[in-house]
Amino acid sequence: MSDILHQLAEVLDQRRHADPESSYVASLHSKGLNKILEKVGEEATETILAAKDAESGVERERQAVVAETADLWFHSLVMLSHLGIDSQDVLDELARRFGISGLDEKAARTTK
Amino acid sequence: MSDILHQLAEVLDQRRHADPESSYVASLHSKGLNKILEKVGEEATETILAAKDAESGVERERQAVVAETADLWFHSLVMLSHLGIDSQDVLDELARRFGISGLDEKAARTTK
Amino acid sequence: MSDILHQLAEVLDQRRHADPESSYVASLHSKGLNKILEKVGEEATETILAAKDAESGVERERQAVVAETADLWFHSLVMLSHLGIDSQDVLDELARRFGISGLDEKAARTTK
Amino acid sequence: MSDILHQLAEVLDQRRHADPESSYVASLHSKGLNKILEKVGEEATETILAAKDAESGVERERQAVVAETADLWFHSLVMLSHLGIDSQDVLDELARRFGISGLDEKAARTTK
Repeated sequence: MSDILHQLAEVLDQRRHADPESSYVASLHSKGLNKILEKVGEEATETILAAKDAESGVERERQAVVAETADLWFHSLVMLSHLGIDSQDVLDELARRFGISGLDEKAARTTK
Repeated sequence: MSDILHQLAEVLDQRRHADPESSYVASLHSKGLNKILEKVGEEATETILAAKDAESGVERERQAVVAETADLWFHSLVMLSHLGIDSQDVLDELARRFGISGLDEKAARTTK
Repeated sequence: MSDILHQLAEVLDQRRHADPESSYVASLHSKGLNKILEKVGEEATETILAAKDAESGVERERQAVVAETADLWFHSLVMLSHLGIDSQDVLDELARRFGISGLDEKAARTTK
Repeated sequence: MSDILHQLAEVLDQRRHADPESSYVASLHSKGLNKILEKVGEEATETILAAKDAESGVERERQAVVAETADLWFHSLVMLSHLGIDSQDVLDELARRFGISGLDEKAARTTK
């Protein structure tokens, strides 16, 4: 996995059991799967709207696409964590589809 | 960036200019931004439905969440590529928010 | 209920039990709730994209908003029918929220 | 048009120019098209989640589907109003597709 995604998944798993009062991740888990999925849907819509506005090529709009896509990926990582699914499985699936040597990378990460 | 996501983004950029008849990625680009965003919305909905069905813990349903999330991330990568936005910027944004040393990783990747 | 929506709901209930080979409505029901909800999500995204494109005021884009909103309402009516929920209940809920005399209308329709 | 939808569309057009501090409809218009479309996407997702939960047939879940569908239709009416599109055009489109005499109804409403 991406070092960033790998580290982020670890952070998300740690925060799952934090105090919902102080951690946004913990508060999402405590509200349950529907709340997490509402956020996935909401961020997908906001990503789509930002992408439409970025077609013009204005830099501020392009930054908004980056921020909204980050929100979308973040909430889908929280969803995976909530269901106990390893985000590495999603990356392995992408690697498999595109003939990328994802499994080698995983082995490399485990041993280093 | 994840080695997998990094390699995938490179594959997607290469296929952008392939023959739309033989490459799904090229066909998406040739149909334009709206078609790509329709797919982002569609895969978000399918991810949400798969996640609801996976609450029961059935293994087949969990596999469906992996496959649908892969579809969602894949189409959002195509969207970024279509707009000329580096997917590394999204990962850097996530690293920044969570205090993860994404920039170090990027430097490491560039120099290796 | 709108005479149109009322008639449409009746048509949809009739077609539910038609041959899935010849009726789109019957084919949606036979594929099940997930397929119907995928269409609701898909048409919501297409409505949003059409609305963004219609901001410019081009007549062709405005027609697309009408067509996509019709698709969205149609598929949400199929969803209600699939769950055995009367679409009049949705209109009554809207009437109640806005202080509109929906119940009088319903009584009027029943007696005419 | 449905008497309810017809009256609701009139109410929405009146409130468009109300004080955004006191009217939710006016506040949506003042925030602009993106905010309205975010709500359309959000309510579509909430409708989908409510429908999944209603599959079990629990009455409380069925009431949630009614409420969420009302939210979805309401926000799509605000979208049409924002773009200056008559919601009757959407009903006429549905009538046309299903061979329902929508135009007669419109004429009847105009003359009564």
